[in-house]
Amino acid sequence: MNPRKDLLDIQSLTDEEITFVLENAVPFKDLFRRSVKKVPTLKGRTMLTLFYEPSTRTRSSFEVAASRLSADVTHFDVESSSVVKGESVLDTVETLEAMRVDYIVVRHKQAGIPNLIAKNTAASVINAGDGWHAHPTQALLDGFTLREVFKDTRGARCLIVGDIQHSRVARSTSLLLRRLGMNMAYLAPGSLMPREVPQEVAQFGNWTDALEWKPDVVYLLRVQSERLEEPFFPSAAEYHKNYGLTDARVQILRERGIYLMHPGPVNRGVEITDKGMDYERSLINAQVENGIAVRMSVLYWLRPGA
Amino acid sequence: MNPRKDLLDIQSLTDEEITFVLENAVPFKDLFRRSVKKVPTLKGRTMLTLFYEPSTRTRSSFEVAASRLSADVTHFDVESSSVVKGESVLDTVETLEAMRVDYIVVRHKQAGIPNLIAKNTAASVINAGDGWHAHPTQALLDGFTLREVFKDTRGARCLIVGDIQHSRVARSTSLLLRRLGMNMAYLAPGSLMPREVPQEVAQFGNWTDALEWKPDVVYLLRVQSERLEEPFFPSAAEYHKNYGLTDARVQILRERGIYLMHPGPVNRGVEITDKGMDYERSLINAQVENGIAVRMSVLYWLRPGA
Amino acid sequence: MNPRKDLLDIQSLTDEEITFVLENAVPFKDLFRRSVKKVPTLKGRTMLTLFYEPSTRTRSSFEVAASRLSADVTHFDVESSSVVKGESVLDTVETLEAMRVDYIVVRHKQAGIPNLIAKNTAASVINAGDGWHAHPTQALLDGFTLREVFKDTRGARCLIVGDIQHSRVARSTSLLLRRLGMNMAYLAPGSLMPREVPQEVAQFGNWTDALEWKPDVVYLLRVQSERLEEPFFPSAAEYHKNYGLTDARVQILRERGIYLMHPGPVNRGVEITDKGMDYERSLINAQVENGIAVRMSVLYWLRPGA
Repeated sequence: MNPRKDLLDIQSLTDEEITFVLENAVPFKDLFRRSVKKVPTLKGRTMLTLFYEPSTRTRSSFEVAASRLSADVTHFDVESSSVVKGESVLDTVETLEAMRVDYIVVRHKQAGIPNLIAKNTAASVINAGDGWHAHPTQALLDGFTLREVFKDTRGARCLIVGDIQHSRVARSTSLLLRRLGMNMAYLAPGSLMPREVPQEVAQFGNWTDALEWKPDVVYLLRVQSERLEEPFFPSAAEYHKNYGLTDARVQILRERGIYLMHPGPVNRGVEITDKGMDYERSLINAQVENGIAVRMSVLYWLRPGA
Repeated sequence: MNPRKDLLDIQSLTDEEITFVLENAVPFKDLFRRSVKKVPTLKGRTMLTLFYEPSTRTRSSFEVAASRLSADVTHFDVESSSVVKGESVLDTVETLEAMRVDYIVVRHKQAGIPNLIAKNTAASVINAGDGWHAHPTQALLDGFTLREVFKDTRGARCLIVGDIQHSRVARSTSLLLRRLGMNMAYLAPGSLMPREVPQEVAQFGNWTDALEWKPDVVYLLRVQSERLEEPFFPSAAEYHKNYGLTDARVQILRERGIYLMHPGPVNRGVEITDKGMDYERSLINAQVENGIAVRMSVLYWLRPGA
Repeated sequence: MNPRKDLLDIQSLTDEEITFVLENAVPFKDLFRRSVKKVPTLKGRTMLTLFYEPSTRTRSSFEVAASRLSADVTHFDVESSSVVKGESVLDTVETLEAMRVDYIVVRHKQAGIPNLIAKNTAASVINAGDGWHAHPTQALLDGFTLREVFKDTRGARCLIVGDIQHSRVARSTSLLLRRLGMNMAYLAPGSLMPREVPQEVAQFGNWTDALEWKPDVVYLLRVQSERLEEPFFPSAAEYHKNYGLTDARVQILRERGIYLMHPGPVNRGVEITDKGMDYERSLINAQVENGIAVRMSVLYWLRPGA
């Protein structure tokens, strides 16, 4: 396995690398059961967060992951000042490069920005979400979570539900789960289904057809509130009725033993009901915990300067 | 002494627990005289701050306390994103629970939120102020400060002045000081005196009567600036004249050797004058320093998962 | 060399102190080539940032410097709360003093505030920029950068270009470089040239004359965007044409082997062109890296409580 500097998307990963990250996350997760949840692995290294879009959860998850590896964490607060001063992304990256930070965790609303940054720094760059493009640590934590549930993920069936078209989560997670041998399907309104879906991914327009496909896992995407105001998007109530996990649909999942996932945070009453949140086969909290373990594993795996 | 998971209010504490926290704060405070102000006690633990109301001072005090115990600190920045995304408190808590943080320090404008959170997490929850309800670490640091001043707090007399009705500080500190055997009195305009004051707490409507009660300590409450705009609240000038510590009243305190306290930050010209801030028996700075020592002691005492 | 508590400006430094800071920054910078970029020098000390003006870069530079010395860092978030509550600077300082922090890094738009703070605390105060007055760590990092470039700085010639009148960088850096034996000149529009320039500093109103002075280094100042709206200030385009580093002027620098500096972040198209940013003798990134090393050296040198 060659050393790798950056984690930008799922496509470029080898099977060996995916396995390495997922398997090494296991002992990191075991650490969370101890009172001292920390190892000295990255002592003296600095991880910097560079979030052009706010995200409390993802940023905190990376921060806790770095702390548990004994790395130092710095938040480069783009919003408060540099952007106001009109500084370009590349000028910011030159600065970070000169600061000799070891890891840069980037979120940006524009696809491709993490790749651009990675080319211009010796630091390891981790894409924490760029536009509709990719969110590879989300995909890896989703894969880790399903490997915990299924002894063998090969042949397991996952249905992703929602705004597939604008979802970097759908894109990255779908790719990763297929790499783990899973069968994938999408359920979305026609206006939110991507034009080009890989042939091996099944497509559905309603729950009845989708459930006949016999999924083992239903993965709900988050409805972005800004979308609800767009003309081609259904209203929250309409979305819930047609694509949300209503109480009746929770009952179907229960009867069939289907697992439930969501990248968080949920919109109660839109993607899911209160009862859905209490569903006993929900993996949503497991996803959060596994997110820290997988991000520790990613930081452990990448090689700044490689 | 049974292990305790959370610190939510003063009522539920046993005398033994109060004594434990106050006595163990002493060696922590001694640490501050050294150049290395740090012990490895909580190495590998994570304290997360969850502030729905901003408070630079209280948050910093907890942060420094945790750092001096070698814990890692994460600020879960509720304002920037989760609340915007409409995430409920309980969904946030499920996330934090899944992150396996050890301590959650909460401030919220609604009374009872820390209790709700505590019931839904294995982490230790520390109430850093909830509505008009409670602010137990403030009470403990106030008690610690007065134990330093009086060999024996029993029988010492403390007069709390200001907007008692809307003050969680008044509520918690008054309870704690009575547990330490002190006699309490309130001085407040009628509109800001709570309807139900415990019988053993004396009530006054003006300074002349209150000073005849012969307090050993005068504890000024902070006037919340938003209150000054409410119809039943006196103007800043009127408040100062009738309930503030004017220069003339500072002189009375000085003549009688009365100590002065305030939870900070002060409104100069409202609760207190510039001369009042320089008063030699002011304990205001001692309260700040003791706040860190007492919060270290609280973190040391609580048992996550208990 | 007597111990010194604060770093407030360049004037008050002895030659021995300047040499001490610049020479000790060398081994700290060497550290950045290692994977563990950290030494335990300031373990158990706390550095607090108190920024009344936002500055992502300077704050991050101090934060990384402190982390690499193993100090704990706390950001006292003045904007979010204390200032809203109308707290005065001195009341804030009393609080910080009571918290027993070891280092306070201050930025304020008003000149003299760091001096005021330094007089009222036992903590070491580092001025990170106060109004038009001083920015001593910028000056020291500039001096360090030029000592790396010139074996002997004595007699080397530096031309500072831009809004000299309102620049604390110009003031501090000019002083420091003269202490290192360099010759200084200013290039500025008449309205932005200070009334009283020391006799030994040459003054120019246009590039032609300034380049005839044969500078070894051109130091561009940042144009503050708020200035562009002021009546006596040239427009961005006019500024660029008359005082900016146009592509033609980059070519002159190249032909003569002149070095280029800028405190960052740059305004592309105003002070400098895209080509200027790629100029091979630019020291801008070196300034950023050296900033961390020099700030480590400053923290190592100062003695809280001295």
